[in-house]
Amino acid sequence: MSMIANRRDLDFLLYEVLGIDRLFAEQRYAAYDRESLEEMFNSAQTLAEEVFYPFATKLDANEPKFEAGKAIGIPEVKEALQALADAGLFGASFDEDAGGLQMPYVAQIAMNGMLSTANHSVYGYAMLTIAAANMLNTFGDQQQKDKFMPAMLEGRWFGTMCLSETQAGSSLSDIRTRAELRDDGAYNIVGSKMWISGGDQEISDNIVHMVLAKIPGGPPGVKGISLFIVPKYRVKDDGSVGDKNNVVLAGLNHKMGQRGLTNALLNFGDGGDSIGYLVGEPHDGLRYMFHMMNEARILVGHGATVLGLAAYLFSLDYARERLQGRHPLNKDPTSPQVPIIEHADVKRLLMAQKVYVEGSLSLVLYCGLLVDRLRTEQDADERTRLDLLLEILTPIVKSWPSEYCLEANKHAIQILGGYGYTRDYPVERHYRDNRLNQIHEGAHGIHGIDLLGRKVRMAGGRALDILIAEIDATISEAQDGGFATEAADLADAVALLRSTTADVLACDDTTLSLANATIYLDACGHIVVAWLWLQQALAAKRAVSGVAADAAFYNGKKTAMQFFMRYELPKVAAPLKLVGTLDDLTLNADAADFIGT
Amino acid sequence: MSMIANRRDLDFLLYEVLGIDRLFAEQRYAAYDRESLEEMFNSAQTLAEEVFYPFATKLDANEPKFEAGKAIGIPEVKEALQALADAGLFGASFDEDAGGLQMPYVAQIAMNGMLSTANHSVYGYAMLTIAAANMLNTFGDQQQKDKFMPAMLEGRWFGTMCLSETQAGSSLSDIRTRAELRDDGAYNIVGSKMWISGGDQEISDNIVHMVLAKIPGGPPGVKGISLFIVPKYRVKDDGSVGDKNNVVLAGLNHKMGQRGLTNALLNFGDGGDSIGYLVGEPHDGLRYMFHMMNEARILVGHGATVLGLAAYLFSLDYARERLQGRHPLNKDPTSPQVPIIEHADVKRLLMAQKVYVEGSLSLVLYCGLLVDRLRTEQDADERTRLDLLLEILTPIVKSWPSEYCLEANKHAIQILGGYGYTRDYPVERHYRDNRLNQIHEGAHGIHGIDLLGRKVRMAGGRALDILIAEIDATISEAQDGGFATEAADLADAVALLRSTTADVLACDDTTLSLANATIYLDACGHIVVAWLWLQQALAAKRAVSGVAADAAFYNGKKTAMQFFMRYELPKVAAPLKLVGTLDDLTLNADAADFIGT
Repeated sequence: MSMIANRRDLDFLLYEVLGIDRLFAEQRYAAYDRESLEEMFNSAQTLAEEVFYPFATKLDANEPKFEAGKAIGIPEVKEALQALADAGLFGASFDEDAGGLQMPYVAQIAMNGMLSTANHSVYGYAMLTIAAANMLNTFGDQQQKDKFMPAMLEGRWFGTMCLSETQAGSSLSDIRTRAELRDDGAYNIVGSKMWISGGDQEISDNIVHMVLAKIPGGPPGVKGISLFIVPKYRVKDDGSVGDKNNVVLAGLNHKMGQRGLTNALLNFGDGGDSIGYLVGEPHDGLRYMFHMMNEARILVGHGATVLGLAAYLFSLDYARERLQGRHPLNKDPTSPQVPIIEHADVKRLLMAQKVYVEGSLSLVLYCGLLVDRLRTEQDADERTRLDLLLEILTPIVKSWPSEYCLEANKHAIQILGGYGYTRDYPVERHYRDNRLNQIHEGAHGIHGIDLLGRKVRMAGGRALDILIAEIDATISEAQDGGFATEAADLADAVALLRSTTADVLACDDTTLSLANATIYLDACGHIVVAWLWLQQALAAKRAVSGVAADAAFYNGKKTAMQFFMRYELPKVAAPLKLVGTLDDLTLNADAADFIGT
Repeated sequence: MSMIANRRDLDFLLYEVLGIDRLFAEQRYAAYDRESLEEMFNSAQTLAEEVFYPFATKLDANEPKFEAGKAIGIPEVKEALQALADAGLFGASFDEDAGGLQMPYVAQIAMNGMLSTANHSVYGYAMLTIAAANMLNTFGDQQQKDKFMPAMLEGRWFGTMCLSETQAGSSLSDIRTRAELRDDGAYNIVGSKMWISGGDQEISDNIVHMVLAKIPGGPPGVKGISLFIVPKYRVKDDGSVGDKNNVVLAGLNHKMGQRGLTNALLNFGDGGDSIGYLVGEPHDGLRYMFHMMNEARILVGHGATVLGLAAYLFSLDYARERLQGRHPLNKDPTSPQVPIIEHADVKRLLMAQKVYVEGSLSLVLYCGLLVDRLRTEQDADERTRLDLLLEILTPIVKSWPSEYCLEANKHAIQILGGYGYTRDYPVERHYRDNRLNQIHEGAHGIHGIDLLGRKVRMAGGRALDILIAEIDATISEAQDGGFATEAADLADAVALLRSTTADVLACDDTTLSLANATIYLDACGHIVVAWLWLQQALAAKRAVSGVAADAAFYNGKKTAMQFFMRYELPKVAAPLKLVGTLDDLTLNADAADFIGT
């Protein structure tokens, strides 16, 4: 079995559950069909397995070093990214007009997921480049696009997002980097940026930093933040790389995981001008960033998911091969040992991984398809509906996989036992890598506040109504489709979600109403994933299967859905009830309550 | 504040909750009183803070290397352990007759916990030595004790436990190491042992391995396992170290955490005889090991707890200092940022750490006191009662802290954000270190089977009755003591535990009844810790306090108890109900159900 992809599951989710073939009827995606995507997936899988995967462990053990002001890493990284560029995959999701392949977004996520599963850190450079180019493509002017995008889509120049500063992590309103207008109409960027993934490297010919900075004299706080393009090397009129732009690598962070992807402290305007180019309007930078965030947050959730998948596949394979112990009723110590997958608790750990990982993947791809539908939908009302649905799912798609695929990684280590705790096996690396996902792109608690403080209140509560209507449709289908018990359980959970939400919204005290927002976020995620598991089970039931492997696959989907409904969904009642009580215990806890001094 | 100890909490648990001063009235511990223990604690804390703590990060970054057949580490490790030996702490818990200090066991755990919090890997060498010497003291003959124990209690020779082999981790009945009788009455030990913590090092003058092996011709399985003393270097008649005993270091495991403590693959009888000395009777080795397991499992739970404590203290201190963001109602971006401890979700993460860590510590010390009471109790019936209580708590004290203090470590990283994800701060190390505790000394799932398959059934179910009687006594006290709501909640949970247990025990199908044993273990642990939190709150309520810091301390205990009752205890209902249904879903899942092939 492949250690980096479950192609059968991708096909199932994309075509049998989500029906993405409907996209091929849209003019935007008319160049694609299932066969052409399959060929692209095959190429990507080969690249992932043959080029990306083999050095993932080596890369983790040899993180880039800060030497003479440069970030020096092992050569395999550049070779792998060159191969990715050669395959044309940097620009896959961009419009043809922009030099891309105009691939359906949901398919591009699924395809690139194989690369990201195989070697998470290396793929990170590409992901960041795509994100930066995407922002440029959306908000840059034609001249900016012409100057920077082609080299990025060809994978010759990479991109970064420069938001955080040492004193401003979750609180962007407090950034201090400033942008001073130059005589030539550009800006000099002065300040330091922290936690910049891919912030420096010696891989690409140039780096295009997308930088948040404040133009002096602007409004305070988030309303005074502007967005700039700041290249590592200045770009000549002919498009070639010129002098350095005084973006100085001040140090590399030494992380627990994701070690192959540099993470840098950058000084702008250090020893000379760092020239930056304003994107869009002054003081409007945070709005541009937020506009891109839905996609960025899908990608973080997807990153967590593929790390979960990598460990799930590895531990499943291990559990099938590793002989240890005997069945409970077999007291004969001379009888052969059994594969550990025959032990009930190992099966439970594998089934939990399956529901977390495949549940996360279904959520990520569902959101990915919403992006495509927003790109193709002509009807304004339907666009509004889809937009609200994506808005309310965004904090969930970012956070739920980050929590539960980390839990899946914990289980994978457990299945390998002592071996799993060593660096000779990849599962401890997946666990270390995955711990980041609750921290970046909005820390976990921020998404709770986003969901309960903003998303469930937006458009008069319509976003939540739309989500629940979607869930109710699946419940109706399941009631008649042989899953009446599970449909009823999910309906009960949704009813509790509704009443809990109403209880919270009835509270006038904003601070109190948000005190347990993270718990609400977590429970919402469980209900959403339960719904998507029911969708998967219905799709499996609809399928007519002629081969044994497919029968087992579909049966496994049904089993996993039932596992989620029996072992996971019942966990939401207690926390939702707690949220509904508007408990003020943590809110009122004093700093001295913790250890008494 | 100290980063390695919360002395106020230790005093509270030892004296105000557990009342260990009652031990001083026992002849065995008559040499001790609170003041003498305090002096010893002060010395240990100084040693922990000044010698152990400063190089913990350096040690993690410089794990021992396998060079020319030896395990070579940094010199600080030997210096720290020498200081520990100089302080006489290797033998603290041993009887005076055996050359020890005859310290109360519970106090020794609490005291050594400071060293273990400060530098977990280094303290591991001492812990293993104490465990090996303890086994020798319990089951060795006088000649063996005279030969090996003094050097171990003086910290000149270290000890190890050699159980696992590559093909036999959780299944000891399948070990292959054999012991062949020599003409001189000793045995030649031949075979390989895997996962041996402290298995080799260049720190101590000798290593005393306690090795499980099979004498050819013995019964198959666990009934044919014998225990041997196998020194690294042979010991001359005058007690000095002689020739090497052909225990060959074949390699070191490279772990995710606990990197400062070597973990070795050892070959016995490699290139010459490895002479071993039979401990006790042939074929009785596993019984001896099991006899020591209650204490070993308390120590693993304690190891998990102190790693939780280390990160809790660090993240608490950080949360009080780190400025970030503003209160939800403050929309003025020019106002100063607040310490992040003022954010409700940060308080929730800290409170969760507090209840996990201090709840675990109360459980560990409760079990530690049971060991002391078993050593001092004269009444046979009461001894039986205490023994059964310790038996049923053993799988819980090992497992619950291993699960929830790891969760606490996850929260500590979250509080530090990006910084927490870097190796510049210790919390990611604690998280890596702690992940081991669910794996060693019986993997997590094994303890579920131990609890539900053995402990709740032993003595006709009396162990569970005894535990519940203890809990009921606290509930009664709480009902009249101002915590009626919490007492009622706990009583409901206990009632559910009773009925669930009855449902499981009524099932004739052993395999089915144990299928969800890990879930039962987890829920039991929550109920036990809820009970101990109620004990803590009652003790806090009883306390008369004259100083503000103490008032805050006691108030914090009450708040933490309420947090546990509202945020944690309600989590047990759904899983216990699931266990009671004897759900066979995971048991019946087929290997092909997971990905369909």
